Amino acid sequence: MPRYALLVEYDGGPFAGWQRQADQPSVQGAIEAALARLEPRAHTIAAAGRTDAGVHARGQVAQCDMARDWEPFRLMEALNYHLKPAPVAIRDCARVPEDWHARFSALERRYLFRVLVRRAPLTLEAGQVWQVRHPLDAAAMRQGAAHLLGRHDFTTFRSSLCQAASPVKTLDECRIEEVATGAGREIRFHLRARSFLHNQVRSIVGTLERVGAGAWPPARVQQALEARDRAACGPVCPPDGLYLTGVGYPEPPFAAPAEESA
Amino acid sequence: MPRYALLVEYDGGPFAGWQRQADQPSVQGAIEAALARLEPRAHTIAAAGRTDAGVHARGQVAQCDMARDWEPFRLMEALNYHLKPAPVAIRDCARVPEDWHARFSALERRYLFRVLVRRAPLTLEAGQVWQVRHPLDAAAMRQGAAHLLGRHDFTTFRSSLCQAASPVKTLDECRIEEVATGAGREIRFHLRARSFLHNQVRSIVGTLERVGAGAWPPARVQQALEARDRAACGPVCPPDGLYLTGVGYPEPPFAAPAEESA
Repeated sequence: MPRYALLVEYDGGPFAGWQRQADQPSVQGAIEAALARLEPRAHTIAAAGRTDAGVHARGQVAQCDMARDWEPFRLMEALNYHLKPAPVAIRDCARVPEDWHARFSALERRYLFRVLVRRAPLTLEAGQVWQVRHPLDAAAMRQGAAHLLGRHDFTTFRSSLCQAASPVKTLDECRIEEVATGAGREIRFHLRARSFLHNQVRSIVGTLERVGAGAWPPARVQQALEARDRAACGPVCPPDGLYLTGVGYPEPPFAAPAEESA
Repeated sequence: MPRYALLVEYDGGPFAGWQRQADQPSVQGAIEAALARLEPRAHTIAAAGRTDAGVHARGQVAQCDMARDWEPFRLMEALNYHLKPAPVAIRDCARVPEDWHARFSALERRYLFRVLVRRAPLTLEAGQVWQVRHPLDAAAMRQGAAHLLGRHDFTTFRSSLCQAASPVKTLDECRIEEVATGAGREIRFHLRARSFLHNQVRSIVGTLERVGAGAWPPARVQQALEARDRAACGPVCPPDGLYLTGVGYPEPPFAAPAEESA
């Protein structure tokens, strides 16, 4: 069966997460239902990142197998037609080899976490950022983040529900950017790794927020990491600000990669 | 009675516009209802720009008169508390002289119009940009926009419902910016004038879109302006992409102006 790679964007707000569930809306379920409108049968798709409830994506990558030989542009258009009105869009579609796998062929995942520092309640950004009402010291957070770069046992920063075989991961990037926006001062955390543990990004950002707020000295991040103890982690932050922005493969399946910013 | 200036942000989506209406939700109505929770009586507030249904604001300025002498920060916090869950936020509050008027003291209004050029349906930006599915030539639009700068009779670019005494206005800025965002290529129109006619920004952007699409040569904007005829205008574009970003006064009422971008 011809296999296709899909570049997927979604607003995670209304979904219980990527993964199909029996009784709750999921992004996987929405796409599989759209596929069933094109080729009536059961479809099971796989994705590079199984994002949690409320987490957004700009550059999720999924795969699907079709019985017919679809022209990729037509398949994308047909899926977008049937996905309406769910806030899920297929931004690109490409034919890939049948041994290519959205999850297992991926070499890296890139995430963005947006924090908006302001006192007034959110209006236009509601559900799309994590609002913090106190000042955050970006320089201190950068010092804290530096302790996490490289290969470590990230037991402290993984959910107790995490099913990964090993807590050892390599964090290749944890860049902290400050941007002045119409809504206020935004702090963007850019994280990149081959793969992440469950809740790892939200555990790291929630911990660095404590550093930015002045509640933790930056060196405490190192101590937390070395503790290899979930109890040493800062508070896990909410999903609203988290975006899966892109996935890297040995050969990019899509002709032009989507721009990766908020 | 002590008078206060309010810096107001809102998502225009759920509202029939700024102006209070008997049977539909309005931003003015939401703020007046919040004021009535603080000082129980009828409140009538005025704003610098009476935005239409679906139009957003980052920097709307309104005024209110209070019986009590409120500390401005406390007034802002109390209003934000009572505005919930409406997507309206008071971002700043200042005591102003009693002869100061949010509308009549204003020297300029600044608007932003966001156009997102992409084929895939919108997810996270739904309701916040105007989506255009074909390429737009920014250079051609800049040529077209240049014809509109300065003092002109803007009859072509005003709604037939416009109640302004004169169609003559001075357009001080019509800058066109291109930005690569996570959602695609965004074209931002920045317009600035002492005041605008009804639907003027949407009429101008809708006309320039025709130029950007290649359907109109840039010089046709000049001809449309000179026609002084509503029928010569391009299609008025939808409200989703329009933001009132700021209002200028002889003396800024707020200590630190809000940043003005999308």
